[in-house]
Amino acid sequence: MLVHISKSVLVKALQQVYRAVPSHSPNSLLSGLYIHADSEGIVFRGSNTSLTLQYKVDIQDGSVHVVRSGSIVCHAKYLYELVRKMNDDDVILEAKSQSMLHISAGGTFVRLSGMSQAEEFPSIVPPVSVALYPTVQVPSRLLISVIQQVVVAVSTSESRPILTGVSLVIQGERLTMIATDGIVRMATRTVAIKNEAGVSASVIVPGTNLLEISRLLGEDGDEPVTIQFYPHQIYFSTNRLCMQSALIEGKYPPTRDLVPSGYISEVTVNLSILRQTVDRVSVLAEQRLITLQASEPRLVLSADTSEIGDMCDGLAWESRSGEDFRITVNGKYLISTLRSMESDCIRIRFADKRRPIILLPTDENASWLFLLNPVLTN
Amino acid sequence: MLVHISKSVLVKALQQVYRAVPSHSPNSLLSGLYIHADSEGIVFRGSNTSLTLQYKVDIQDGSVHVVRSGSIVCHAKYLYELVRKMNDDDVILEAKSQSMLHISAGGTFVRLSGMSQAEEFPSIVPPVSVALYPTVQVPSRLLISVIQQVVVAVSTSESRPILTGVSLVIQGERLTMIATDGIVRMATRTVAIKNEAGVSASVIVPGTNLLEISRLLGEDGDEPVTIQFYPHQIYFSTNRLCMQSALIEGKYPPTRDLVPSGYISEVTVNLSILRQTVDRVSVLAEQRLITLQASEPRLVLSADTSEIGDMCDGLAWESRSGEDFRITVNGKYLISTLRSMESDCIRIRFADKRRPIILLPTDENASWLFLLNPVLTN
Repeated sequence: MLVHISKSVLVKALQQVYRAVPSHSPNSLLSGLYIHADSEGIVFRGSNTSLTLQYKVDIQDGSVHVVRSGSIVCHAKYLYELVRKMNDDDVILEAKSQSMLHISAGGTFVRLSGMSQAEEFPSIVPPVSVALYPTVQVPSRLLISVIQQVVVAVSTSESRPILTGVSLVIQGERLTMIATDGIVRMATRTVAIKNEAGVSASVIVPGTNLLEISRLLGEDGDEPVTIQFYPHQIYFSTNRLCMQSALIEGKYPPTRDLVPSGYISEVTVNLSILRQTVDRVSVLAEQRLITLQASEPRLVLSADTSEIGDMCDGLAWESRSGEDFRITVNGKYLISTLRSMESDCIRIRFADKRRPIILLPTDENASWLFLLNPVLTN
Repeated sequence: MLVHISKSVLVKALQQVYRAVPSHSPNSLLSGLYIHADSEGIVFRGSNTSLTLQYKVDIQDGSVHVVRSGSIVCHAKYLYELVRKMNDDDVILEAKSQSMLHISAGGTFVRLSGMSQAEEFPSIVPPVSVALYPTVQVPSRLLISVIQQVVVAVSTSESRPILTGVSLVIQGERLTMIATDGIVRMATRTVAIKNEAGVSASVIVPGTNLLEISRLLGEDGDEPVTIQFYPHQIYFSTNRLCMQSALIEGKYPPTRDLVPSGYISEVTVNLSILRQTVDRVSVLAEQRLITLQASEPRLVLSADTSEIGDMCDGLAWESRSGEDFRITVNGKYLISTLRSMESDCIRIRFADKRRPIILLPTDENASWLFLLNPVLTN
C-alpha cells in the first residue's frame, strides 16, 4: 500500500471510525484500525464487534492518491494521535507488508507496527447481494432526531439486556422507535417514511450503537440514509459512511398499556424555559427528586437537599386545562429527555399522582411522547 | 445582610474565590464561602487554610447595592452552581441571621443554610498595621510570567516538602524565583523590580498556591501587585483581589552548583516549532523518553514504544556552535517547560551526556534558565 492523502481528510476519517474502537478488548486486533486502499479510494474501519464503522475516502474527491493498493491494521490510538499532530498537510502512508506502516509528513517519519492478521478484522461488506434484504431510505436529520429523542429512555442496566436496546419497527409508511427502562421511562416516536417496496421489519438495536450512529450522521451533512435489515445485523449507510450494528435477539415487551388512557390535567409550557428551570432546580435536588406543581398562576418546580437548603422556581404556562396537580419525578430523567426534544412548547399531561406524566409536543401531527413515572414520596 | 448584586459580577466573584475551596476537608466550614457586606461593598472569601483568596466588589462599581450589612458562610458548591444558573441579572442576597441565606432572582427563590460560625472563617486582614511589614510592588504580567515559568519545576512528591515550594528572594532591585524537584529539573528567573524601601526577603511559597495566584492575576487585568511579607505568610494583593499563602518553613537547598559551568555545544531553535515537535514525538515516547540529537543539518528528536513503533522528527536550527551531541530526556518535563516559556527562540546548551542540558532565552539580558537532567540509557 502506498497512498498520499490530505491530513485534514485523514484526521476526519480516523476520528469517525475511532469511535467504534473499544478502550479495552480481549481481542487485541480490535484496538486497531483497518485501512484498505485500492483504485476506488481508501476505506477506514473500526469495530468493537457489536458496532462496526467504516468511512470511505473516494479517489474522485481529489484529496487522496493511491499509488499502490493494499491493507493494514494499525493501533488506533497511536495512529490517530500521531496523524492529528502532523504539521504538513501532505501525508504519505506506505506499507510494504502488513507488519509495518510508514507514515511521513513534513520532517516527521514514523514506523508503526501492523497487526499482521488484517484479513481477520471484522468485515462490513455483506456476504451476499444486498438486493436480497429489505431496504428503506430515511432522511438523515429525521433519523438523527428520532434516535436521539428515543434513546434517552433505554435501560443502562444489564439485568434485562433487551431493554438496553431500542425497538425499531417498520410497517407500511411508518417507522417507529420505542425505548423503555421497564420501570420509570418510556419514549416513542413514529415518523412517515417512503416504503415503496413494502418492507416490514421489527428489530432491537443496542441503544449505545444507535447513539453513536446518530452522532456520526450528524457530522456527515444531510443526505439520505439507507437502512438494510440482515439476519442478526442492521446496516445504516450514506455515501461515505457504512455502520453495522449487531441486533439484540428476543421479543421486545409490549409498551402500549404503559400510557394512561386519559388525563385530568394538561399544561403547555415553553420547552427552553422549562429546561433551564429544571436544570437550576436540579442543583438542590437530593436523590434527583423534583416536584412539579400546577396551580395558579404558574408551574412551580421545587427541590430540597437536607442540611443544605431548598428552593422553588417556576414558569408561566402558555395554556392550561383541568385540575391542579402535584407530582414528584426524577430530575435527571426529566432533563435528559427535555434536552433531546425539538419543539417550541411541550404539553405535560397528568392522570393521577401514582401514574406517569406524559410529555408530548403541541403539534398534534408530531407523533412522539415521553412517559415518566413518578417517585412516590411521603 | 441584604444586598442587590448583578449576576455576572456575583458569578465572577464566586468563581475567583471558589478556587481555594478544598474538595474534601475535615473542617466543614472550609467547604463554605464567606460573604461580608458593609458600606464599602461586598467581600467574598474562600480558603483551604494554606491558601486564602478574597475578592472585593466595591460599592462604587455600581454593580452592587448594600441595603443592610452582615456576613454569612454558605456551602460553596451549591452557592456557585445556583447563582451560575440564575436567569435574571438582578440577584438579591438576604440573610436575617447567619443560619440562612435567601437568594432570589427572577422567579427563583432559594434558601441556603448558613454555617453558623462565620467569624471562625479564616481571616485575611492582617492583625497589625501593614506598614510594619516589608512591601514591594511588581507589575502583574511580569509576576505571572515569572511564576508560571518557574513553578513547572517544583516537586510533586511530599517526600521532601520543601521542594514542593518555590524559593522567592528579593534582594536590592532584583526578584528571583527558583524551583527544583531536587533530581531532574530546576528553573530559575530573576527580574528587575523597584525596591525603594530596600526590602530584603527570602521565603518558600507552596508551588500550587503560586500557580493559583498567577491564574487569578491573569484574569484580573494588568495592574501592580503588592507583595507583603508577614511572619509565616505572604500576601499578594491588587485592587480587588487579596491572596494569602502560608509559607513552607525551612532552608531552601543551594542550587547554584547544579548548573554546569561550561558547555561544549549550543543550538538555537524556534520555540514554537520545538514545542510542536516534542508534542508529536511524545506520542511514541515510552516512559516519556525522547532523544535529542544535534548533527547536520538539523536537531533530530526521536522516540519509540516497544511493539508499537518508533519515529524521528526534527527541526532546522537558527544557529549552532560546538560539537554534535546526543542526549535522552524526559519528554513530559521538556514539554511542560517549553509551554511556560515566552520567547521566539531558545538556546539549548549541552555540556556532557551525563550532565543536564540548559534551556535559556536568546536575549542575553533575560535572566532565566531551565535545567533538565538526562535519563541515562544504554
